[in-house]
Amino acid sequence: MLASTTKLSGRSLIGFREGQGSGKPLYATDPTTGQQLHPGFIPATEDEVNLAAKLAAEAFETYRHTSGKERGAFLRTIAAKIESITGEIVERAGQETALPAARLQSETARTCGQLRLFAHIAEEGSWVNARIDHADAARKPLPKPDIRSMLLPLGPVVVFGASNFPLAFSVAGGDTASALAGGNTVIVKAHAAHPGTSELVGRAVQESVRECGLPEGVFSVLFGSGSQIGVALMKHPLVRAGGFTGSRTAGRILMDVAASRPEPIPFYAEMSSTNPVFLLPGALRERAENIAAGLHGSFTLGAGQFCTKPGMVFLAQDSEAERFTRKLRELVEASTPFHLLTHAIHSSYDSAISARKAHYGVEAVAEGRSVSSTGFAANAALFETDAQSFLGSELEAEIFGPTTLLVRNANRDQMLAIARSLEGHLTATIHGTEEDLREFADLIAILETKVGRLVFNGFPTGVEVTHAMVHGGPYPSTSDGRSTSVGSQAIFRFTRLVCYQGFPESALPDQLKSANPLGIWRMVDGQMTCEPGSRVA
Amino acid sequence: MLASTTKLSGRSLIGFREGQGSGKPLYATDPTTGQQLHPGFIPATEDEVNLAAKLAAEAFETYRHTSGKERGAFLRTIAAKIESITGEIVERAGQETALPAARLQSETARTCGQLRLFAHIAEEGSWVNARIDHADAARKPLPKPDIRSMLLPLGPVVVFGASNFPLAFSVAGGDTASALAGGNTVIVKAHAAHPGTSELVGRAVQESVRECGLPEGVFSVLFGSGSQIGVALMKHPLVRAGGFTGSRTAGRILMDVAASRPEPIPFYAEMSSTNPVFLLPGALRERAENIAAGLHGSFTLGAGQFCTKPGMVFLAQDSEAERFTRKLRELVEASTPFHLLTHAIHSSYDSAISARKAHYGVEAVAEGRSVSSTGFAANAALFETDAQSFLGSELEAEIFGPTTLLVRNANRDQMLAIARSLEGHLTATIHGTEEDLREFADLIAILETKVGRLVFNGFPTGVEVTHAMVHGGPYPSTSDGRSTSVGSQAIFRFTRLVCYQGFPESALPDQLKSANPLGIWRMVDGQMTCEPGSRVA
Repeated sequence: MLASTTKLSGRSLIGFREGQGSGKPLYATDPTTGQQLHPGFIPATEDEVNLAAKLAAEAFETYRHTSGKERGAFLRTIAAKIESITGEIVERAGQETALPAARLQSETARTCGQLRLFAHIAEEGSWVNARIDHADAARKPLPKPDIRSMLLPLGPVVVFGASNFPLAFSVAGGDTASALAGGNTVIVKAHAAHPGTSELVGRAVQESVRECGLPEGVFSVLFGSGSQIGVALMKHPLVRAGGFTGSRTAGRILMDVAASRPEPIPFYAEMSSTNPVFLLPGALRERAENIAAGLHGSFTLGAGQFCTKPGMVFLAQDSEAERFTRKLRELVEASTPFHLLTHAIHSSYDSAISARKAHYGVEAVAEGRSVSSTGFAANAALFETDAQSFLGSELEAEIFGPTTLLVRNANRDQMLAIARSLEGHLTATIHGTEEDLREFADLIAILETKVGRLVFNGFPTGVEVTHAMVHGGPYPSTSDGRSTSVGSQAIFRFTRLVCYQGFPESALPDQLKSANPLGIWRMVDGQMTCEPGSRVA
Repeated sequence: MLASTTKLSGRSLIGFREGQGSGKPLYATDPTTGQQLHPGFIPATEDEVNLAAKLAAEAFETYRHTSGKERGAFLRTIAAKIESITGEIVERAGQETALPAARLQSETARTCGQLRLFAHIAEEGSWVNARIDHADAARKPLPKPDIRSMLLPLGPVVVFGASNFPLAFSVAGGDTASALAGGNTVIVKAHAAHPGTSELVGRAVQESVRECGLPEGVFSVLFGSGSQIGVALMKHPLVRAGGFTGSRTAGRILMDVAASRPEPIPFYAEMSSTNPVFLLPGALRERAENIAAGLHGSFTLGAGQFCTKPGMVFLAQDSEAERFTRKLRELVEASTPFHLLTHAIHSSYDSAISARKAHYGVEAVAEGRSVSSTGFAANAALFETDAQSFLGSELEAEIFGPTTLLVRNANRDQMLAIARSLEGHLTATIHGTEEDLREFADLIAILETKVGRLVFNGFPTGVEVTHAMVHGGPYPSTSDGRSTSVGSQAIFRFTRLVCYQGFPESALPDQLKSANPLGIWRMVDGQMTCEPGSRVA
């Protein structure tokens, strides 16, 4: 067993306290060797789950009343503390995930960027969607009352760390940042694949809570299994929402737990997506090889372990398509092996690749070069099938890892029939010329109903963290296709509308006071304005 | 059996077609006599449910691409057609509900007002929440792509008519108006209490679809039982969302159906609410009798069959509170009987009142004058208990009908303890002076987490249809406390976010084109603007 260079306690962080835990410790594994990494992480007990929830509910009473500026300062403190230990994080995360240092450095930077984006959103303040409808005492038959509405936070939110983003979708990732920015408290269920990274980041958040003078229950990190700790958290009566990134099986179990509670709660799970790519004729004519190179880069990026990995590619059967396939085959055959993140992902990938090889109507076109079989090593794999074999098959299911499937169609109608048959995905990509787009306008119309993000002449991996980003899509890609888990609109997930009728100024939240002391954008009598809220008309 | 003066077919409206139906016809009942009303309404068959869903899904492909102006014209046509048959509607609805003509006239006007509000929202167009983040080719390490997002409709929406609002929350009520404004198609499951009214309004919508040149599947009305037709609709794979107003039992069944589908869908149920009222010391000192009169009007309005009926009132045990109670007792004792809407509501009310009379620690303070026992006649009833008996009891449950419960507390802390113990409700009301509000600031903070609307010195019945209205609250008052079913924000329920990455102008929806041809409000590079979308900054 490898010794860790950084000092880790292997205990849950429950507010400012250290958990005792009980039961068999969980160990992270080095994916390149399969060796366990020190220390062991002791699962949280049922009492500790209860304590974390109780502290989170108590802290919510204070934290929800903090100003946008205070929340912004808190999030910026977290970002600075994480940056200050980037070296330690990258080292430990590298051991736990086998992801390259450059990737882990940029993921740390992205995580801090997300925290600062939400700090900005909280500080700017317009996100609360404030609306004011003035009274009209003269209205007949009854006077019209003054009504003012805004978004308020939900309460304690459970965040499940993701295997494939040890930083950006884990302890202080997008779910945590958006929940805290909105005024919620957070309990993280750390992912078993990178507990050491989770403890390091968790301590940075814990110190930030203390430094900003916030109550300890604002934040906790629990170690333990999803089926025990995760389910216990989602069932806990004090928990008000959940955010999850992971497998469809685990996501659906937790969805059902959230929905079947005596008091059901919102649960945002990002579960699985095969991210269809449509290669239109004009694009293949113009740049078949370029697209092949881009696609290869995209489906093998991060060893194919991104939720936006393009896992199926639809194209014609003509000579341009042949050119594309030839190039892609060369690239796959030249690929050196990858290391998958966990033993479970590695086993699933192996079985799925074997099943695909045995699948009637599917041809194994190319495989990467086998030069390693240590740890969780895996080769890239390229498969091909035709539209008829694809339709009605199980071939749409996501395979997590560096593989993709080419689906050859005889004509435009067959491509549209496939598009119509698709289930929900996070993204769909179209490569085409502007002429292609005109000719395939109905393809866009179909895909708009299937995904959350449409990409034109690009690749779906690489999710921008901006105001307009939508990282979400119809079931089964997520549990709730109305929302996004990336970008500033993610803050809306952990909020609810409340209105105040006939309230005197002194009792209204600042966001709804007539003078608009925060200078935020509001809808006043139906008109958008950032001026003081005197009657518009 | 009474003959109907208006010509009704008693058949479902499936697009432009008339359903055949099968099985035992359902009859409306005159609540004043208990007599059945002609004609019988034949339940839709399973095939008809499938046909309605298929037509709705097909029509969605066209309807979702209509412009805001086209949807506005459609909604305005519906409103005009309903207005043109107000006389017929009021007559039939009067027979079916025993609601006074004035109430039915004003509810018809409100329904048309709602349709026109959503017409305006659709025409104005800013509701789609358009956002543009411009590309930055110079960004390091990778260029930043252009990303633009907006809200799109979900697809076929099932709307369940409500017993207590034969117009404003039924066939062409708020759910239908908001779903259609957002670009969804609608299938209404008519409520069995007012099928004739439902057919009349349904025909008005059907004619409007035809007149506006829209595909027939944009709208259907089905007759039949909730447990058969309702459940079949919510299970149908082509249905994408549901909206419901009714009992907690039926709402929870349908919630569970929506959540346990292979592909779960959003379901917005408004289910039950007891709408706590807090009478603070200063207010009682100043105007005990006025508050008693207002409360009496509010809890007996519409025979107490509003989801916002104040069903529990918290106050002290001092002499001011005595003055209030004395006045309220007089008013209740002077109340003449009401007619409840249906046999089922009448039986439930009777049992609930008997149970309350037998409840340990509850005193029956006053009852209305019994001068009628025909049909579904019911008397107002006033009960009283103390905080200790209330806490931990079942007394928080809604009783649908003209009754309320006074809960006397010994002190401020007891009142706060009760507030903390409450489950989710639609509204909470506080009567107080500004001084009371300062002294009870923590009461407001507690109630913000319990309800969707806080009313100060008013009464919760009478829900304004405005931009800032929130008619929604935490479970069990609704299934999804993040949303409102009344007011212009109701449109957001039947929508989802989609973004377009790297799309050429020509392939973007008008809402996202740089020139902003619709002149709507958008967030461009993080800044709100209604100017053309050139780079801000």
